[in-house]
Amino acid sequence: MGFIPPKSHMAVLLKDFYKPLVIEHIPTIEPKGESVLVKTIATGICHSDIHAWRGDYRPAGLPKKLPIVLSHEIVGTVVACGDGVPKPLLNRKVLVYPWQYEEEDEFTLAGLTQLGRKRRRLGLDVDGGLQEYVYVGHYRFLVDVEGLDDVPALAPLACAGLTTYRAIKKLINYVGPDDYVAIVGLGGLGSYAVQWVKTVLPYVNMIGVDVREEAIEFASKLARIDCIVNPSKVNPIDEVLRLTKGRGVRAVVDLVASPKVVATYINVLDTKGVYVLVGHMGEEGVTIPRPRVIRNELTIVGSYTGSLSEQHEVVNLARRGKINYSAVVTARYRLDEVNEAFKSIEEGRTLGRQVVVM
Amino acid sequence: MGFIPPKSHMAVLLKDFYKPLVIEHIPTIEPKGESVLVKTIATGICHSDIHAWRGDYRPAGLPKKLPIVLSHEIVGTVVACGDGVPKPLLNRKVLVYPWQYEEEDEFTLAGLTQLGRKRRRLGLDVDGGLQEYVYVGHYRFLVDVEGLDDVPALAPLACAGLTTYRAIKKLINYVGPDDYVAIVGLGGLGSYAVQWVKTVLPYVNMIGVDVREEAIEFASKLARIDCIVNPSKVNPIDEVLRLTKGRGVRAVVDLVASPKVVATYINVLDTKGVYVLVGHMGEEGVTIPRPRVIRNELTIVGSYTGSLSEQHEVVNLARRGKINYSAVVTARYRLDEVNEAFKSIEEGRTLGRQVVVM
Amino acid sequence: MGFIPPKSHMAVLLKDFYKPLVIEHIPTIEPKGESVLVKTIATGICHSDIHAWRGDYRPAGLPKKLPIVLSHEIVGTVVACGDGVPKPLLNRKVLVYPWQYEEEDEFTLAGLTQLGRKRRRLGLDVDGGLQEYVYVGHYRFLVDVEGLDDVPALAPLACAGLTTYRAIKKLINYVGPDDYVAIVGLGGLGSYAVQWVKTVLPYVNMIGVDVREEAIEFASKLARIDCIVNPSKVNPIDEVLRLTKGRGVRAVVDLVASPKVVATYINVLDTKGVYVLVGHMGEEGVTIPRPRVIRNELTIVGSYTGSLSEQHEVVNLARRGKINYSAVVTARYRLDEVNEAFKSIEEGRTLGRQVVVM
Amino acid sequence: MGFIPPKSHMAVLLKDFYKPLVIEHIPTIEPKGESVLVKTIATGICHSDIHAWRGDYRPAGLPKKLPIVLSHEIVGTVVACGDGVPKPLLNRKVLVYPWQYEEEDEFTLAGLTQLGRKRRRLGLDVDGGLQEYVYVGHYRFLVDVEGLDDVPALAPLACAGLTTYRAIKKLINYVGPDDYVAIVGLGGLGSYAVQWVKTVLPYVNMIGVDVREEAIEFASKLARIDCIVNPSKVNPIDEVLRLTKGRGVRAVVDLVASPKVVATYINVLDTKGVYVLVGHMGEEGVTIPRPRVIRNELTIVGSYTGSLSEQHEVVNLARRGKINYSAVVTARYRLDEVNEAFKSIEEGRTLGRQVVVM
Repeated sequence: MGFIPPKSHMAVLLKDFYKPLVIEHIPTIEPKGESVLVKTIATGICHSDIHAWRGDYRPAGLPKKLPIVLSHEIVGTVVACGDGVPKPLLNRKVLVYPWQYEEEDEFTLAGLTQLGRKRRRLGLDVDGGLQEYVYVGHYRFLVDVEGLDDVPALAPLACAGLTTYRAIKKLINYVGPDDYVAIVGLGGLGSYAVQWVKTVLPYVNMIGVDVREEAIEFASKLARIDCIVNPSKVNPIDEVLRLTKGRGVRAVVDLVASPKVVATYINVLDTKGVYVLVGHMGEEGVTIPRPRVIRNELTIVGSYTGSLSEQHEVVNLARRGKINYSAVVTARYRLDEVNEAFKSIEEGRTLGRQVVVM
Repeated sequence: MGFIPPKSHMAVLLKDFYKPLVIEHIPTIEPKGESVLVKTIATGICHSDIHAWRGDYRPAGLPKKLPIVLSHEIVGTVVACGDGVPKPLLNRKVLVYPWQYEEEDEFTLAGLTQLGRKRRRLGLDVDGGLQEYVYVGHYRFLVDVEGLDDVPALAPLACAGLTTYRAIKKLINYVGPDDYVAIVGLGGLGSYAVQWVKTVLPYVNMIGVDVREEAIEFASKLARIDCIVNPSKVNPIDEVLRLTKGRGVRAVVDLVASPKVVATYINVLDTKGVYVLVGHMGEEGVTIPRPRVIRNELTIVGSYTGSLSEQHEVVNLARRGKINYSAVVTARYRLDEVNEAFKSIEEGRTLGRQVVVM
Repeated sequence: MGFIPPKSHMAVLLKDFYKPLVIEHIPTIEPKGESVLVKTIATGICHSDIHAWRGDYRPAGLPKKLPIVLSHEIVGTVVACGDGVPKPLLNRKVLVYPWQYEEEDEFTLAGLTQLGRKRRRLGLDVDGGLQEYVYVGHYRFLVDVEGLDDVPALAPLACAGLTTYRAIKKLINYVGPDDYVAIVGLGGLGSYAVQWVKTVLPYVNMIGVDVREEAIEFASKLARIDCIVNPSKVNPIDEVLRLTKGRGVRAVVDLVASPKVVATYINVLDTKGVYVLVGHMGEEGVTIPRPRVIRNELTIVGSYTGSLSEQHEVVNLARRGKINYSAVVTARYRLDEVNEAFKSIEEGRTLGRQVVVM
Repeated sequence: MGFIPPKSHMAVLLKDFYKPLVIEHIPTIEPKGESVLVKTIATGICHSDIHAWRGDYRPAGLPKKLPIVLSHEIVGTVVACGDGVPKPLLNRKVLVYPWQYEEEDEFTLAGLTQLGRKRRRLGLDVDGGLQEYVYVGHYRFLVDVEGLDDVPALAPLACAGLTTYRAIKKLINYVGPDDYVAIVGLGGLGSYAVQWVKTVLPYVNMIGVDVREEAIEFASKLARIDCIVNPSKVNPIDEVLRLTKGRGVRAVVDLVASPKVVATYINVLDTKGVYVLVGHMGEEGVTIPRPRVIRNELTIVGSYTGSLSEQHEVVNLARRGKINYSAVVTARYRLDEVNEAFKSIEEGRTLGRQVVVM
């Protein structure tokens, strides 16, 4: 192991909510046992990073510490390993699975990695990707990406790509070959979701929903969406019922999940339909029409990021060309442009996803 | 077929909402093709009959006709058959599956009998059980109960027993052997539900919830409930968390399903938990905590009565002594006591279930 | 109903096993109740028709009567209906679902139409499609095909297309996005199977296996098969292991299912793999390696034709262009060429499927 | 950590196949990182230990080394821990999950612990329980048993109890409330299996099958078996069909799984039935009736030990009194009686299970 980790390295720190992020040197942690040190190649900026920066998660006690290094969508190179790490990992390019845990429990043992009772989420519970070197507590959280093109653009597959993959996969046991599926929200998450529908459920009819014409156009280039509904132009319930000959859709994947959106689109579900709640974290409740839920046996289910197994699947599908991840990344910032990047995403001026490249 | 159906017979008619029900003679329908005529032995009174009588379902356009004969929990004897009905059915005692349909569709073909697009529900869409002779459109909706004891007490298995059976069976793929399950509401439905838990999921820990001490006592005689929570005496969330060592339950079967009840008990669900909405029909929405639903991957699902296959299962389990259906029936009325019966149930003075015996 | 069914019509009769089939007039049955009369447009010839003709099924007591009209892949026009049949069916073009039943039971009620205890299979238990008019006992067994192109070529979707669809759908819960699936046998069934893989499981890697170069070539035109294995040229076990980097496949769909084929390809299954047995009916046993089945938790499962729900799905997918059914039909015979057709299929001189057009 | 592991300790060594086992001192391994040292309280003797001793697994290259310490059913006390082990584990009584792995892979990540590609099975790949101190490579493989009665009798839950638990759990999605389930083999495994049926599937009708009257009697004391079939006294196929009114059983759990037993009992499966192969490792193939498997859509599936999650479930169920593990253990030997124990089990003179207590 020729590489000697430096004593310290550059990191972007969140010190005060909604103030500019600060670039400073912080100590580099030397990996021991089964932990590794990853030199960051690129790291994505997620809407939840914006929320954390603004302090929106303070009611939930997050982030767990201040200052913290945000971002959880990381690709990099393994530069140092503890002595419990298999040798061939050194110098490999990897994607870092961010939904880590400290101790195994009944969920992690059953393969539900992301639902572990003692979560240690990068960028939220511990330091994340906006730094030169990222410490990863166990090598099991690394997914090899050697040989893949455009490595920086892989970064968002650790959250946006993974989250939508799990949400779409949940539909497999609900939708049949002739059913309609609505994807509500064609922004960053939606850019992956419409592609996963084509990869995982190619036999269904896909309806894409968004109020922004430019988002509709962007997503439509990534995957052939069978029908578009723009609720700023038509009554969305009437329109979906018209498209489905009065039956409604078998599944809604709601990537917005605001109370108003849920209250609308749960009414276009056909009998035995499923409503998948995804999307960013807010604190509000949403209201569902109890009698319809009962009489038509509807299911409402939350979907949270994805498991480590699913992270491997996502990377493998990327390797086999089943998802166009490069085209989703619409902006690549330098580390010193990070405040500009946050501002731009906060103001909703972006399509697809954005990464910071070291 | 020695029996000649009479020209007319006695029936209890709902003519004006919330006015006394009227006993009159109505024409008897002669069965043809695959239909049958059943001489009523007993018929149960369900809370939804009370709602229909009060006019609570008028916003939903129900009942579909006036006057109508209420009640959908029917046992009787087959007294006449169309020429398309297999001979051995004649003179058999049967329970009538009430969630009928006019035409097969994708749901009925897939075994989801009760979710057919063209439902023909007894006592709601067409005449039900409060009459001497009930016309049943197809013999497939009959379940043989010959040889079972106390036939009148079987009647509520057509709705209360069936509905709870399906709801409990839905848990099989959610709960593990060491999990906690909460049954909220220990009235008529609850009296069956606690028994189904013991029959179908005997390995779980059952928590029974009700505010009425007498209901708790009644249900506890029917099945051994592991823990009782009475929210009029303790904070139910704290108590459930205490009982489950802070983890919460893996499943709630909510037989009340009012907005307040849902808003309370969804907060005692552990990660990957399921909330089953059952119960009578109201028109309100219920609010669910979106962030918890997403972050803990909760499922909320409606359960509506049960399928014809499940109706057979329920009767078979009754035949094998796996449910004590006699003990649930706490009152047996004569046909001329029907208004007294409705009044008594409306006022909540009853435990278990009530039937009218011809 | 202007149409008056004739007293009799032309039919192809199997009178003596392995002797030429005889064309004669037989009485036409007038539909009553829920039955219909269908004027045949085209009817497919299946390998099982050849077996029945040769008398191969005599040990199993089939066909149930002699003479019998063979063939169970029927498309036609509804020309007469009993009075229990919905009016709009008259004059519609339909595909006839051939796996009928006399009485509903627990399987048919649960949607497993083809597994009913009292099966009434066309061409095996009762008269099938090689006649001018086919009597169908219940209109539920008709699937509307109005508006579809090349109606005669739809006929094999009633057996070959349906059987392979169900077999491939069984894989959904076994195979992941990066797994390998082997289709063994690229003849008539295989021509549909490779297309269903592309429609239902597009994310897997497909391996096609056959000894006949012309079958490989034919199937390859219908769907892009990722890898080909010809066991007459390579050791198939070595080759599959090489292609899968030593892991083996997650699923084998065996459309040949002879003892030798099973004994070979069960050895290329990876841990948790599934082996689906399909194909024509023979009477032999097949041997499976018990220790591997246990230690790697393999599953061996039979797949028998398909359900009525699946028949609707198959036709809907054809309607949406998800399967090229025309290209599979390589020969179209006239009714008076039926003996030539049987001879040609028996001798294995055919690719894809063959139909008789009236 | 006051305890200093000794330099060496007593162990029972298999040096030559089918020769007496030898008790010698071997070096004690000091735990590092996440590994632990367990002082053995008791360890069970499994039929597979007998096979390994006789050399029956030599064709499969097992055991992987000689001499080896046999036995994989271990309970003991944690006496020393590496520095990566959570402190509270020290001095706890634990059961050791024996189906360990060296590296995580897609199976272990998905919760299928026992199917890991790089298995490290105690007593087969590495040294097992017949020694004073057992080295365990990772503390995740320990299940806390503090507070449970009769700790030595818990040992067989690590294999016999776990294996049967998983096999019975596999039935949940196959059997309905009124179905029949046959348990073939009422020896050591069967003694747990009949209890798991009562705990997990109490609604089914259980048929117990064995040729040994004393085994039938022994198992019948552990759980109420609904019907007994002794194939040395009756034709077992006829008898099962008689008991099931001609329908057959929905599931067979075959704990013998010899070719002759499989060839018999696969013929008593009803349509959609499942045949679970369990039991010790032999090298023969078994023959299945292909046409029945296809036409009745039977499933044959292997079940191999159980996952780590299931091991926790088994211990929790024992803690809650849902399995009588003490009564299954019919003999407790001292370490110096180990050769006598092996002889006795080999000769089939035992019922239930046997343990060696330190």
